[in-house]
Amino acid sequence: MTDNSINQLKVLLGEIYDLNSTLAVLGWDQQTYMPTGGAEERGSAMATISRIMHLKITSEELQKCLSICEAQAAGWPEDSDEARLIKVTRREVDRRIRIPADWVASFAEATAIGQEMWEQAKGTSDFKRFQPFLERIIDLRREYASFFQPYEHIYDPMLDEFEPGLKTADVLKIFAILRKEQVALIKEIASRPQVDASFLRLFYPENVQWDFGVEVVSRMGFDWNKGRQDNSAHPFTTTFGMGDVRITTRLIPDNLASALFSTIHEGGHALYEQGFSPAFFRTPLATGASMAVHESQSRMWENLVGRSKSFWTFYYPRLQSLFPSQLGNVSLDAFYKGINRVEPSLIRTESDEATYNLHIMLRLEMEIALLEGKIEVRDLPEIWRDRMKEYLGVVPADDAHGILQDIHWAGGLIGYFPTYALGNVISAQVWEAVKKDIPDLDDLIAQGKFEVLLSWLRKNIHVHGAKFETQELVQKVTGSPIDPHPYLKYLEAKFKEVYS
Amino acid sequence: MTDNSINQLKVLLGEIYDLNSTLAVLGWDQQTYMPTGGAEERGSAMATISRIMHLKITSEELQKCLSICEAQAAGWPEDSDEARLIKVTRREVDRRIRIPADWVASFAEATAIGQEMWEQAKGTSDFKRFQPFLERIIDLRREYASFFQPYEHIYDPMLDEFEPGLKTADVLKIFAILRKEQVALIKEIASRPQVDASFLRLFYPENVQWDFGVEVVSRMGFDWNKGRQDNSAHPFTTTFGMGDVRITTRLIPDNLASALFSTIHEGGHALYEQGFSPAFFRTPLATGASMAVHESQSRMWENLVGRSKSFWTFYYPRLQSLFPSQLGNVSLDAFYKGINRVEPSLIRTESDEATYNLHIMLRLEMEIALLEGKIEVRDLPEIWRDRMKEYLGVVPADDAHGILQDIHWAGGLIGYFPTYALGNVISAQVWEAVKKDIPDLDDLIAQGKFEVLLSWLRKNIHVHGAKFETQELVQKVTGSPIDPHPYLKYLEAKFKEVYS
Repeated sequence: MTDNSINQLKVLLGEIYDLNSTLAVLGWDQQTYMPTGGAEERGSAMATISRIMHLKITSEELQKCLSICEAQAAGWPEDSDEARLIKVTRREVDRRIRIPADWVASFAEATAIGQEMWEQAKGTSDFKRFQPFLERIIDLRREYASFFQPYEHIYDPMLDEFEPGLKTADVLKIFAILRKEQVALIKEIASRPQVDASFLRLFYPENVQWDFGVEVVSRMGFDWNKGRQDNSAHPFTTTFGMGDVRITTRLIPDNLASALFSTIHEGGHALYEQGFSPAFFRTPLATGASMAVHESQSRMWENLVGRSKSFWTFYYPRLQSLFPSQLGNVSLDAFYKGINRVEPSLIRTESDEATYNLHIMLRLEMEIALLEGKIEVRDLPEIWRDRMKEYLGVVPADDAHGILQDIHWAGGLIGYFPTYALGNVISAQVWEAVKKDIPDLDDLIAQGKFEVLLSWLRKNIHVHGAKFETQELVQKVTGSPIDPHPYLKYLEAKFKEVYS
Repeated sequence: MTDNSINQLKVLLGEIYDLNSTLAVLGWDQQTYMPTGGAEERGSAMATISRIMHLKITSEELQKCLSICEAQAAGWPEDSDEARLIKVTRREVDRRIRIPADWVASFAEATAIGQEMWEQAKGTSDFKRFQPFLERIIDLRREYASFFQPYEHIYDPMLDEFEPGLKTADVLKIFAILRKEQVALIKEIASRPQVDASFLRLFYPENVQWDFGVEVVSRMGFDWNKGRQDNSAHPFTTTFGMGDVRITTRLIPDNLASALFSTIHEGGHALYEQGFSPAFFRTPLATGASMAVHESQSRMWENLVGRSKSFWTFYYPRLQSLFPSQLGNVSLDAFYKGINRVEPSLIRTESDEATYNLHIMLRLEMEIALLEGKIEVRDLPEIWRDRMKEYLGVVPADDAHGILQDIHWAGGLIGYFPTYALGNVISAQVWEAVKKDIPDLDDLIAQGKFEVLLSWLRKNIHVHGAKFETQELVQKVTGSPIDPHPYLKYLEAKFKEVYS
């Protein structure tokens, strides 16, 4: 009897997994290969699949089956896969049940067309073109918040979608600490002699950039039988299943760092997705614990590994051999400093570690103000320019390099940006834990040996998939809840070295 | 009230259209970009979407709505879009209602894994690897036939899926005429001095082949804002919607004709799919009338246009300029004869017009014998070799060039092959009708002007989508039902010229 119910639950969840995976395929194609003419029908298709998935998650059949399973699970070990599967399902069912199916379909449609219009608007740097579509998305997101009343903060329901269990108040507390320290750090750095990074903006043929990126993610451990890489306007990772995890990159000929670090970043996400326990096949446990934990993996590979001296001790000779005319006369030390140069800049994904979180804080402020109705979508370009000037002292020449740079809002991802900064924070906490277990980690990396690191991550984080919530997992792995201080300590140490 | 029901029907059909379109995306990706590790989960996803679609088509909600619409449509003009939409829906509902949902899911799963295994088996020319998967598919297809008992012929239910209304007896009658005449023609040609086509097997760089193919389909009228081209092991056309029609090709460096004519072929399919009436948006009328009509379009562009003297009068100088060392010394006349060379050969998709239909007849015979249980899957490679020797006098050195050459059975497409030969037949009938309306067609083609032809096809065939059944449409367009004689007349005239 017990077996029957949990097996029945798995059948129902398997179907939902398939629908989710299908949505991922539709979304991936939309961002990689779809011709412009396909936008409208793709929007319909994604809306239909989203609505069907929503109805399955909120179906009486699933709820009934889940209730039986919950009753049976009362005596099971709290940490067993089955008990956790039931818990994670309950969380999602309870969230979904508040959302009307029509809203889900409208939202899917609005974000499908939104992403298409964002791409067009970004291409012509014409925010007006995107404005009505973003207005629609913000309206839908405000409606979404209303389904979760009463809440402590209107942003809580957004955050909860990507960070189950975390509250806006917690995030604002962490961000307040980060802001204070990071602003001081940036000021301190600004007073030091500048670092040269101009060699990163020479001409780097796209195909060689691509090949080097493939070399790096391969060595990181990316399994090409279970994934692939394509081009897209905005790099991302998406998962069709444990056997098919895809990353994308964006090659810019006169910007070596852009594709390189975004490829390593997405590779970090992908390693997580390729590393779930096989026991989680076609269940909701076969996903990351949260977006912040996901970002902790991608940002760790991108920054703590990919921008480290050890990493380039191994890879720099190889990179020089691929780009002899561009890098032949640049020393390892100069290269290392160049890729870690701190300079308040326009593009989040290309910003340095010292300023990155400020981009996030600006997005979060705007998201909260939009939801609270304190600002209007039409005013965003101007507000963006003003705040960028205030926070970072730089002003974009056009909207493509300003408010339009990121696809997230077009895809309906309101509540997502904070997870990037939280990911940074967690990555440093995890890194301290890794180093405790692997004292010679730097040496291994300097020899191009990433297996020990990957095995550690697999065993301590990846294999668990979505079994544990963020705070629970961070506590388990690092012995403490989310704490911004290790990250600040890491930043200070690093930039003391770079700006010595 | 009337409006409400037909609108409600369109909403329900729109949802089914979305699911079908989603399946097309999943299938396209499977055959173009999916890594091998994705096969299992893709199989599950396709099975789930197929099952959901099946349940929607056979739902009480749809049936009830359809019945109301039928009652209301009694007084409507028989040829109105709405009346036809209802008729086409009824046909599909009646067919689907006989098929259990579990069968649909099993079939989707079996064909997803089947295609994956076919690709592996073909790659290593190892039929044994594919055998159990094909056995499963044949078993499922026999079960499928049983749902339609009583039938005149066990093959009727297969055929009906791709050729609504057509009977196996009709096809066999047409094929008997074709076989007799084509065998005589081949014999006659064999007695003539051979034609040289060896220049087609020189080294032709893949990227130049690709670019030329793009040039040709562009001039044919393919709309790149509403479609794209990719590589796949087996060229195909698939439709995600009127705004997104995709073709694939397969480039072989030492075979100029392969990608060239398959690109034109798929381009012909795609023009059809891009030409439906916009009024059919997200309805089941936004598809081809049948596979035979579809093939009449692709085979017409491939052969009646693409292998004509006029076509190459325009294109040959351009082709020569792209491949000066390979074709510089080959005259237009020699090239024309070369691409029309008759030679019994191993690969259907690359076979000449005189022998092509014999490949189809062999497939049809085997399909019928498999369904009737007169032969076993494990014996297929040997039977294939024997019959190829008997029919065409050639024997494949391995299964990759024999029984494994075509993906169709792996995808569950039993009943599909005959539509190729029927398409040939219809293409010649349509061509006679076109020429009656456009007497200077050859001159126009020789000037690279395809618009007049495309407009004619759009107006007389494409725009109607699936409004009319094959026989009805052929009658409407050509003034006669399907008739093999125009095709035989065309073949004879052509090969008299080539083998003068």
